Amino acid sequence: MEPAEPVERVVRHFEEGLDQLKKRLLEMGGLAEEQVRRVVQGLVERLPSQLDEVLRNDEPLNSLQIEIDSRCFTLLALHQPMAVDLRTIMAAAKINVDLERVGDLAVNIAEAAKRYILHPPVKRLIDIPRMATIAQQMLRDALDAYVRRDTTLAQHVLDEDDRLDALKTQIFRELLTFMLQDPGTIEPSLDLILISRHLERIGDHATNIAEDVIFMVSARDVRHHAAIDPKS
Amino acid sequence: MEPAEPVERVVRHFEEGLDQLKKRLLEMGGLAEEQVRRVVQGLVERLPSQLDEVLRNDEPLNSLQIEIDSRCFTLLALHQPMAVDLRTIMAAAKINVDLERVGDLAVNIAEAAKRYILHPPVKRLIDIPRMATIAQQMLRDALDAYVRRDTTLAQHVLDEDDRLDALKTQIFRELLTFMLQDPGTIEPSLDLILISRHLERIGDHATNIAEDVIFMVSARDVRHHAAIDPKS
Repeated sequence: MEPAEPVERVVRHFEEGLDQLKKRLLEMGGLAEEQVRRVVQGLVERLPSQLDEVLRNDEPLNSLQIEIDSRCFTLLALHQPMAVDLRTIMAAAKINVDLERVGDLAVNIAEAAKRYILHPPVKRLIDIPRMATIAQQMLRDALDAYVRRDTTLAQHVLDEDDRLDALKTQIFRELLTFMLQDPGTIEPSLDLILISRHLERIGDHATNIAEDVIFMVSARDVRHHAAIDPKS
Repeated sequence: MEPAEPVERVVRHFEEGLDQLKKRLLEMGGLAEEQVRRVVQGLVERLPSQLDEVLRNDEPLNSLQIEIDSRCFTLLALHQPMAVDLRTIMAAAKINVDLERVGDLAVNIAEAAKRYILHPPVKRLIDIPRMATIAQQMLRDALDAYVRRDTTLAQHVLDEDDRLDALKTQIFRELLTFMLQDPGTIEPSLDLILISRHLERIGDHATNIAEDVIFMVSARDVRHHAAIDPKS
């Protein structure tokens, strides 16, 4: 066993460091996805305590973002990777930002949901949980695609985005009708519209990740620096 | 004069490449800012042709994003910079994403504005142009702070974000009152609310850039790899 060096977050072997980085990214993705699941459950079941919990649980995501950023930096500085490895780390740094924003959007949803449940329900919430389910799956698939360098799965994520957009438009039209019929529903309806847009943006972040994966993998082919990934 | 190598986008000297990168980022920032200025002018003066122009002018921003990404990658791959130089390029890669999103938000504003001007004006637009002016200045300052490694200016950008938030809340309250009084204003009011949120998000992207600058500069001090920047 080699002795550990007193450098901040030493990574002795590049492959080991890259594996840890991917593991942390997946962990962060899991936390972000769980925040989305919980906030929408809190909205549908009208549970203020659960919404408060989502607000509190943003902190671990912020810490992870800083840690992952530092891992990317250290891997680049200590190992100066080339080609596909370099692209993998650059993609990780970008995905990190996207996941942290997903966490922020869960917080935004929690804030709107806390206002919403102060009013009587405007309607039964069916399309919003549906949007959340699609967005969560997109996130999961996008991160799987990253880890497995799977451009087919990444392309599937891009396709799913259309379903989110369609649901958002449908929710908007329905709520607009309610608002026009009964001005008493305007305030809570506005919050539902905002929530549906936050969910759409979560899908946009999954889309960003999927695009990064496609760019990461295809640039490898184009530049003829292709390396065989031992994990694929 | 050295002969140019047949590598994609050769950068012979690191400093020269870094200067070019910064120049391109500033150029992209200028384009993004101009898109914001033009779209809000198109909204206020009700000019559909100018809004269409904003929709068309998103393309140069997308091309620049790809070029800047490629420059970051090439600088890292060919020069394997350390410490402050590495952080400067990592920050550039992130800022690139933020600027491209600002362009997307200008497009979103153009789409909402095109719908809005189909209705009679809901109110005189004063706070929305004010938001746009603040957001544009934040963008400019954030990029200046990046180029000059100026954490004081970056901190100023963070402080300005509160003003945007306050204006957004004020716009929301005012429009809510209109909607409650006259359901005929609901549709155009919703578009103004969306536009104010898009402008707030442009401020968020400027804030992200400012945070990257602070992190880039302060990490340099903490890690004791400080290099004198010849341009500061």
